[in-house]
Amino acid sequence: MRIVQKFGGTSVGSVERIQNVAKRVKTWTDNGHEVAVVVSAMSGETNRLTGLIQQIDSNANRREQDVILSSGEQVSMALLSIALHTLGVKSESFFGWQAGVQTDDAHTKARILNIDSKKVIDALTEKKVAVIAGFQGITEKGSVSTLGRGGSDTSAVALSIALDADECQIYTDVDGVYSTDPRVVPEARRLPYILFEEMLEMASLGSKVLQIRSVELACKYEVPLRVLSSLTPIQENLSLEKLGGTLIIPESKMKTMTKTMEDPKISGIAFNRDEAQIKVNAVPDSPGIAYKILSAISDCNIEVDMIVQNTSNNDLADFTFTVNRSDYARAMEITKKTSPIISADNVIGNDKIVKISLVGVGMRSHAGIASKMFQILAQENINILIISTSEIKISVGIDEENLEKAVKALHQAFELEKDNISEEN
Amino acid sequence: MRIVQKFGGTSVGSVERIQNVAKRVKTWTDNGHEVAVVVSAMSGETNRLTGLIQQIDSNANRREQDVILSSGEQVSMALLSIALHTLGVKSESFFGWQAGVQTDDAHTKARILNIDSKKVIDALTEKKVAVIAGFQGITEKGSVSTLGRGGSDTSAVALSIALDADECQIYTDVDGVYSTDPRVVPEARRLPYILFEEMLEMASLGSKVLQIRSVELACKYEVPLRVLSSLTPIQENLSLEKLGGTLIIPESKMKTMTKTMEDPKISGIAFNRDEAQIKVNAVPDSPGIAYKILSAISDCNIEVDMIVQNTSNNDLADFTFTVNRSDYARAMEITKKTSPIISADNVIGNDKIVKISLVGVGMRSHAGIASKMFQILAQENINILIISTSEIKISVGIDEENLEKAVKALHQAFELEKDNISEEN
Repeated sequence: MRIVQKFGGTSVGSVERIQNVAKRVKTWTDNGHEVAVVVSAMSGETNRLTGLIQQIDSNANRREQDVILSSGEQVSMALLSIALHTLGVKSESFFGWQAGVQTDDAHTKARILNIDSKKVIDALTEKKVAVIAGFQGITEKGSVSTLGRGGSDTSAVALSIALDADECQIYTDVDGVYSTDPRVVPEARRLPYILFEEMLEMASLGSKVLQIRSVELACKYEVPLRVLSSLTPIQENLSLEKLGGTLIIPESKMKTMTKTMEDPKISGIAFNRDEAQIKVNAVPDSPGIAYKILSAISDCNIEVDMIVQNTSNNDLADFTFTVNRSDYARAMEITKKTSPIISADNVIGNDKIVKISLVGVGMRSHAGIASKMFQILAQENINILIISTSEIKISVGIDEENLEKAVKALHQAFELEKDNISEEN
Repeated sequence: MRIVQKFGGTSVGSVERIQNVAKRVKTWTDNGHEVAVVVSAMSGETNRLTGLIQQIDSNANRREQDVILSSGEQVSMALLSIALHTLGVKSESFFGWQAGVQTDDAHTKARILNIDSKKVIDALTEKKVAVIAGFQGITEKGSVSTLGRGGSDTSAVALSIALDADECQIYTDVDGVYSTDPRVVPEARRLPYILFEEMLEMASLGSKVLQIRSVELACKYEVPLRVLSSLTPIQENLSLEKLGGTLIIPESKMKTMTKTMEDPKISGIAFNRDEAQIKVNAVPDSPGIAYKILSAISDCNIEVDMIVQNTSNNDLADFTFTVNRSDYARAMEITKKTSPIISADNVIGNDKIVKISLVGVGMRSHAGIASKMFQILAQENINILIISTSEIKISVGIDEENLEKAVKALHQAFELEKDNISEEN
């Protein structure tokens, strides 16, 4: 098989850890697999480099920033290659430009346009491990570019597409995606499988395992993506089936894997502690109201999360939205200025709310899930402040003091501690 | 004019120093000159990177070593470019491969084959300062290579040739080349001019201002090379004539610059404290003796400095050579093993000698210089242990305790404190 493995900054954070990564990679080549490894900079290095730049100019030229920032990955990739050599594993390192990673010229946040992977394929064909600098590429003008923080995940997925890899493995410091945060619910269960669509909702809702951009890309090209830990003991006898971690797959594949097709309505519960709610009351309900409120907010580069609008009997609407807590003060200020323009009655804010979301493709055909969720919360005497739904998730805003109680109750009620999907299929 | 300036690791050793370099470069662009700047890694950085490599493998793959080592210059070049921007100076940074520096594939000690400087010239034409990573290039296979320690001087000279620059300025922490070490002779004088040939002798004899490789290259292509300090105050009104430092020029140019053509026989006095002498006594004088003694030494990678052989009346020769003191013990051991093979009488060593050399093209036509040198040393009651001469230098080995006395006496006798060459014409 052809495998792409990505190791993040913590996994290559010291010489000793790099040597451990080399041992882990070796178990794959020993089992006859072709391996391309994508690495991040050693942890702390990107911050050190950013610090140097900031000392000179906090608004430095972005092309030059990329020259500096890209140096971190180049050190770790060659150190890993050297560590592989000491184990008798043939390997060769590749800068982004050597691996043919073409990007646009949006320096410091470039997007990958194409990967001309001929040189990397040549190395794999020569039975070498190809060690590739994540996070970086080259523009059409021949300048070095970087993909923005966390871009190494995206590099790994893009390379998997270019190499037509059988699996893209993202090694991190957790051993997979959980049904919810185990620090809140100790019974939380590692999910052996999750769908791309579910993972997108989980990721954006605060289960910060993978960069959402990389999941989107893997979803688009249906690259099997596996999250797993770089801290677990190294297995001598590898098999993908017993590898652990969480495999993120397209829906078509999932159907062949579930024992009990009708059962798994919910995959997990995500939550976000940093929400703040702003409610504009009694707005005359006319076209363009939502636009006027939100454009003022987005003009100030504030991201809006949930948006809800209700119309009451007397042609007056209540318009509610949530923002990140750090943007709350400014968002309130802006909205209070907008309020008289749209003849709103008043603006009420609450910066002590949290968002809890049930995620799962199963809920598409199970209308009962929403009412069950609301029933559980009512039994726990938890007031719902805002509700927002999509095809595969239901989110509610509640007072922050109720977060743990709510997540625990929902996790139990939806039987998420049970292994609905067999790992051994 | 088109100027190439090279700043070493100490000159770019901190953010503050990089900002100072930017100010210095700006005075040149303000005066309408085109400037290409070659930079080293920030001081300490190359050692840090080497340390990381050594922790994994003391004999690491050299291609991968180059990937790591080349990261230092890339950070300093982009920081300098950013610092120039803050002063309103347009600039662009170039990796070795972007600047078209083609090398052979002798990784960690590559030699420059050619520089395709089109991109750099484009930048200069657009009135940008081109900031180029020293010490690095790219091989025909597309791998990053480095030129070995001190290679940045060579990068600067090679770039000067490719750009047809009017002058190559090497900024360092001394303000030029001196008639001898001022720490030994306080009256030592900065030489406003020195010939390439003389500089080669001075450099190899221990006046460690410039990498000898870069001087050889500048000599071959007759690139005017100036050594000057990056620590002196920045002049507002620049003129090459009053710039200071030491200009290293070909002999043809020197002739037009000396006021008193016949006078300057000696340019300077170099010395080396780390010599050790080995004397093989009473060897039957037959072909192949020198080869047998020295091949055993060079097979062990020990460099030999001076070599002297005398033949006495009875067909017996005395063969003497010097090595670096750190190689003395091994060289003695090897020579003692060779000794019976060539029927030598005995081997005598002395690891407390130093070498003093008079350097100057004038001595070609002035036979009296050698005898004057020996006379002065005799007056000082200093015994000469070994003598070696070339076209433009005379070297003697003496006891190390006599070093300072000898250098002071010679410096005074040859009137080196006097300004034989006017700085202003």
